[in-house]
Amino acid sequence: MTELLSLPAAELLDRFASSDPTPGGGSAAALSGALGAALVSMVCAMPKTRTGAAPERARLDAALGWAREAGERLRALVEEDTRAYDAVVAAYRRPKGSDEEKAARKAAITMAMARATEVPLETAEACLVVLKSAEEAASHGNPNALSDARTGAALGWAGLVGAAENVRINAASLSDGGTTATLRVEAAVAEGRRRAGALGPPSSARSEADQRWS
Amino acid sequence: MTELLSLPAAELLDRFASSDPTPGGGSAAALSGALGAALVSMVCAMPKTRTGAAPERARLDAALGWAREAGERLRALVEEDTRAYDAVVAAYRRPKGSDEEKAARKAAITMAMARATEVPLETAEACLVVLKSAEEAASHGNPNALSDARTGAALGWAGLVGAAENVRINAASLSDGGTTATLRVEAAVAEGRRRAGALGPPSSARSEADQRWS
Repeated sequence: MTELLSLPAAELLDRFASSDPTPGGGSAAALSGALGAALVSMVCAMPKTRTGAAPERARLDAALGWAREAGERLRALVEEDTRAYDAVVAAYRRPKGSDEEKAARKAAITMAMARATEVPLETAEACLVVLKSAEEAASHGNPNALSDARTGAALGWAGLVGAAENVRINAASLSDGGTTATLRVEAAVAEGRRRAGALGPPSSARSEADQRWS
Repeated sequence: MTELLSLPAAELLDRFASSDPTPGGGSAAALSGALGAALVSMVCAMPKTRTGAAPERARLDAALGWAREAGERLRALVEEDTRAYDAVVAAYRRPKGSDEEKAARKAAITMAMARATEVPLETAEACLVVLKSAEEAASHGNPNALSDARTGAALGWAGLVGAAENVRINAASLSDGGTTATLRVEAAVAEGRRRAGALGPPSSARSEADQRWS
């Protein structure tokens, strides 16, 4: 199988646009988070910090570590989400003639669905790390790159939102009703919303944000 | 110059993460919008519609046209934003020894900044089209792809937010104070927020959204 991220970017976009079921929203969410992590890494790696104070460098170095780790994980999750969803499709296509076949098919679907819930849950949680590192980049990084940090945050938030959609849909078919997965993802969404909000709104409340960040 | 979108996707992510000033947030915003447009195109192109009613097909066909056009434009804007920002950097590096050189440099900066404001403004407006088509896809498209439509909307919104950050920063250095560009982008952000909100929240208000969309 061709790794999705080894495709030319334009061709990868074509794959998302095609009517094939994969890659779909789960992989796109992971890619969004990976792109956000890349922008945040750029800002954290800049030599210049917000005011030049030494503690800023230490915080940015820490945030760079988080962003790079989350970014690597999210790149892998682009592939894993597609594989997980392909496995769900394959499980549904299993024969269902005899009782044995029906039971085996049902077990295969259950297993595939558990994985197809776990993968976007991991994506959501990695996107939360992107948001956390974006906050550090915006607060302590080079002010000339503030728009990059904020764009990184927006991409992390989009990835979190998209991944959460996939968790919610797939969790519903889990044996426990997906309660654990649903609670975990809602916790991630709630924290992500708080962090995204703290990064300053892209809004008419901008003047306030300007005072805070510039 | 290598077109960014002809690079393998993993390498493009590396470029965003590198400490080079480009590609930066403006190109990432356009890429986010292009990815959102791709997901929305996938949903609109599915044969199955929400209830099977004929008007749904017509609306989805129209939305598919918008999403494809916006997606094509956003792919081009990934490159254009990087070129525009490179031109700003080049203008700032012009010699400033004599009065003539200073005047020529200042004129070059003004021109480059105008372009570096226009490009993300176009990105913001194209992302708004992605949101508009995502709304149609979520309202009238295959319910099984609702999470894809919503993820497409989240990506369109992230692109709009990121592009707006770039417009605001660059508009400040325009001769008219960037009033026109700023008003246009704030109008896009306001409409985008409304459309993103209408698509249903990724939140605890979910049960309400479920009633609406499922």
